[in-house]
Amino acid sequence: MKLSGGVEAALHCCVVLTAATGPVPAARLAQLHGVSATYLAKQLQALSRADLVQSVQGKSGGYVLTRPPEDITVLDVVEAVEGTQSTFVCTEIRQRGPLASPPEACTAPCAIARTMAVADRAWRAALREVSIADLGRLVGGDYDTDVLGKVGDWLVSAEP
Amino acid sequence: MKLSGGVEAALHCCVVLTAATGPVPAARLAQLHGVSATYLAKQLQALSRADLVQSVQGKSGGYVLTRPPEDITVLDVVEAVEGTQSTFVCTEIRQRGPLASPPEACTAPCAIARTMAVADRAWRAALREVSIADLGRLVGGDYDTDVLGKVGDWLVSAEP
Ligand code: FES
Ligand code: FES
Repeated sequence: MKLSGGVEAALHCCVVLTAATGPVPAARLAQLHGVSATYLAKQLQALSRADLVQSVQGKSGGYVLTRPPEDITVLDVVEAVEGTQSTFVCTEIRQRGPLASPPEACTAPCAIARTMAVADRAWRAALREVSIADLGRLVGGDYDTDVLGKVGDWLVSAEP
Repeated sequence: MKLSGGVEAALHCCVVLTAATGPVPAARLAQLHGVSATYLAKQLQALSRADLVQSVQGKSGGYVLTRPPEDITVLDVVEAVEGTQSTFVCTEIRQRGPLASPPEACTAPCAIARTMAVADRAWRAALREVSIADLGRLVGGDYDTDVLGKVGDWLVSAEP
């Protein structure tokens, strides 16, 4: 089981957007992260569809977060990119074969599906506990210099 | 992010093996679950590689669990099928682009990767808490009749 690479890019985008003093063009975000514009456009579209970022039109237009980074969780971003469906999909294997459980005995999920769902919820709960603002603070604390400040300035500067 | 369908089949196999009174031929396990023999063979090979089941040779040969079901966790089975690598793969995106962090500043994982790793561990911890024996009890408790007993008898019976 592997998350798509888009999750890493989307989370990094959200964190750097917390440091930008204005809207950031998609091309600038792609350049900063050293990824192709089309690849990043896909992630930004996913974030936009989930209403986590929005595109501001105009000369100095670009992407901004739609709400304070305290109010965006890591789970919001992961689900924007990966979807909200559970990591475990039960195909009701118990209802197949010669000793199949009859449908009327299968109104509740099977014990195996329940166990997998508990673990899925634990994963999501851990991702829900951390906000994009938390990530910004953590990333900032990892370096001696004000990395995010520098990134923020660069993102909205005119030079290519 | 989605687990492969093999996880459901592998977990169901392990649970029904707890009820079998002897080795169960792979073909019998496939028949019980209404899945193709080649599909199930792949899952049984994964379980066997992880040393959770073993194949007993001979006339009444087949698969048995290698240890008491109390000592096999759901995580053991999930990792046998899906591997142990983390659900989140960090590609060190922070080391790319014009403001790349220098490698010497990146000896520890980035805050985003750390957060994703915490969630991955929470998921695995939840799966580690439940054993195959627990699942057997839970599955048994879901039905009025002794479903696993019936399945166990059928698995080692000679009739096709
Ligand atoms: S029937 Fe799907 S997990 Fe048991
Ligand atoms: S560099 Fe990979 S998650 Fe931050």
